Amino acid sequence: MPSSPPPAFVHRRVVEFYETDLAGLAHFSNFFRWMECTELAFLHEHAIPVFTAGASGQRGWPRASACAQFKAPLRFGDEIEVRLRVVSVGRACVRYGFEIWRLAGPGAPELAATGELASVHATRPRSSGQLRPASLLPATRAKLVKLVDPPSGKISP
Amino acid sequence: MPSSPPPAFVHRRVVEFYETDLAGLAHFSNFFRWMECTELAFLHEHAIPVFTAGASGQRGWPRASACAQFKAPLRFGDEIEVRLRVVSVGRACVRYGFEIWRLAGPGAPELAATGELASVHATRPRSSGQLRPASLLPATRAKLVKLVDPPSGKISP
Amino acid sequence: MPSSPPPAFVHRRVVEFYETDLAGLAHFSNFFRWMECTELAFLHEHAIPVFTAGASGQRGWPRASACAQFKAPLRFGDEIEVRLRVVSVGRACVRYGFEIWRLAGPGAPELAATGELASVHATRPRSSGQLRPASLLPATRAKLVKLVDPPSGKISP
Amino acid sequence: MPSSPPPAFVHRRVVEFYETDLAGLAHFSNFFRWMECTELAFLHEHAIPVFTAGASGQRGWPRASACAQFKAPLRFGDEIEVRLRVVSVGRACVRYGFEIWRLAGPGAPELAATGELASVHATRPRSSGQLRPASLLPATRAKLVKLVDPPSGKISP
Repeated sequence: MPSSPPPAFVHRRVVEFYETDLAGLAHFSNFFRWMECTELAFLHEHAIPVFTAGASGQRGWPRASACAQFKAPLRFGDEIEVRLRVVSVGRACVRYGFEIWRLAGPGAPELAATGELASVHATRPRSSGQLRPASLLPATRAKLVKLVDPPSGKISP
Repeated sequence: MPSSPPPAFVHRRVVEFYETDLAGLAHFSNFFRWMECTELAFLHEHAIPVFTAGASGQRGWPRASACAQFKAPLRFGDEIEVRLRVVSVGRACVRYGFEIWRLAGPGAPELAATGELASVHATRPRSSGQLRPASLLPATRAKLVKLVDPPSGKISP
Repeated sequence: MPSSPPPAFVHRRVVEFYETDLAGLAHFSNFFRWMECTELAFLHEHAIPVFTAGASGQRGWPRASACAQFKAPLRFGDEIEVRLRVVSVGRACVRYGFEIWRLAGPGAPELAATGELASVHATRPRSSGQLRPASLLPATRAKLVKLVDPPSGKISP
Repeated sequence: MPSSPPPAFVHRRVVEFYETDLAGLAHFSNFFRWMECTELAFLHEHAIPVFTAGASGQRGWPRASACAQFKAPLRFGDEIEVRLRVVSVGRACVRYGFEIWRLAGPGAPELAATGELASVHATRPRSSGQLRPASLLPATRAKLVKLVDPPSGKISP
């Protein structure tokens, strides 16, 4: 039985009270925040600059797109694990795949959501103020391409 | 020159200071909140119950999926218009398409993002506590199917 | 019967679904966001710069303190009115008082919360990166002192 | 040299990208969220129910008031420590004092903010739907009064 390779990065957190809504569940917008937190912690772990601002302008990772598919609700106090994979690395764009698992509770881990982020490496020169895609720095590219892992199947808990 | 039909619903708001991040732009998670606000205001306008909780349990519209494609950044103080279309109505699921336009500024409106939400009509009986899809109420279905409008092209500003 | 002077500025909004928590009420952190939105809309109305960033650095209004007293809960869909008064104007600090009223529903308006913000006019030179209080610009001071209105009593709805 | 007693509870976290605003600092509304997270984790640690909802109604801890005094800015990636003290325990109200310290960086810890929350033990019977203060449960009171610690002075880092 083939097993999936482990994710490139794992981030754990707890669903906070302020992240719930009146339906008693974690509000869906937070799933995107958790995916971003995982992405940025992953970049930090690999010493890839997340956001820089200097005299000449800014450099960062605005999103080109973001999607999520919700499988099971999450509640206040649930311990969750966000698993990140690098799906592809383009000239200026990195695509990530995510799985959000619920760890707390009596049973086995439960898949709460899957998602994707496409992040663009972009600069905003002070002179123009315009946000523009910029080729990945060579060192960044070298680190990311080694981690590319097309999501070929379900990650086993 | 063919013109697109008008959206089923339009919601306007202003980008707030607390919705920005250190890159100086509206954080992408807010686009999902604005789409939801528009969806719920649309339901309210059509006297379709958004969320009810009673002795027997809850009835609401959890999301099955949410996606957004970001086209242009939004900044603090920008006036925006969120345009909603009903893409399809299933047994228990409604799919919406969104366009978020930036209205403020000197030029013509600018498309800042497109997006989609798939919302499931669901009940959570107090007895089981389990969230389950539930067929649309006939009155709700009747109202929604009349508004179905497959997004056949770009909405002209 | 003495009547209170009107507030210096009034801001209306609706409590959004994403602003509620699992207790079914608006989360208390949002009251601070609504007070800030009102403060910044008030400054904008009076053509007082809210936040500027240029080659030499930033100029803005970080908070020295924020307080709120919660009187009645707010729920999804409630229409609210935030009333702002200028309590005092110091060398670099402006103190605001707020009342948040619930307008929706069958009865008379209900006071949901009172609050205070102390905002410091501050600069952050690019050279040092340090946030420092800065004397109010003369034009800003002139506008604000005319509006000072110590909260001598309850504002009548 | 007298030293302060340790706080009753300590909660650590990192300032997230989505918690910043366009001034490049953590938005002040998040300080209140961090204080709440610490309060609820403290209750959980002592096996004091945070929020319950059943057939007869709800029981929780709505806030009567919340205040914060901001001393130093926090930035994306800063590691912070929130220190909680129980200031007083009333019939239905518990007052907490907080200190938020910045741990990251080259120097000694820096006090970023102090704050206070007054939380009311309240019930909302399903029959009336009205939120009402309710005397603390005896077991809860017994646990909390043992931890009362009037903030007599600065906590040394």
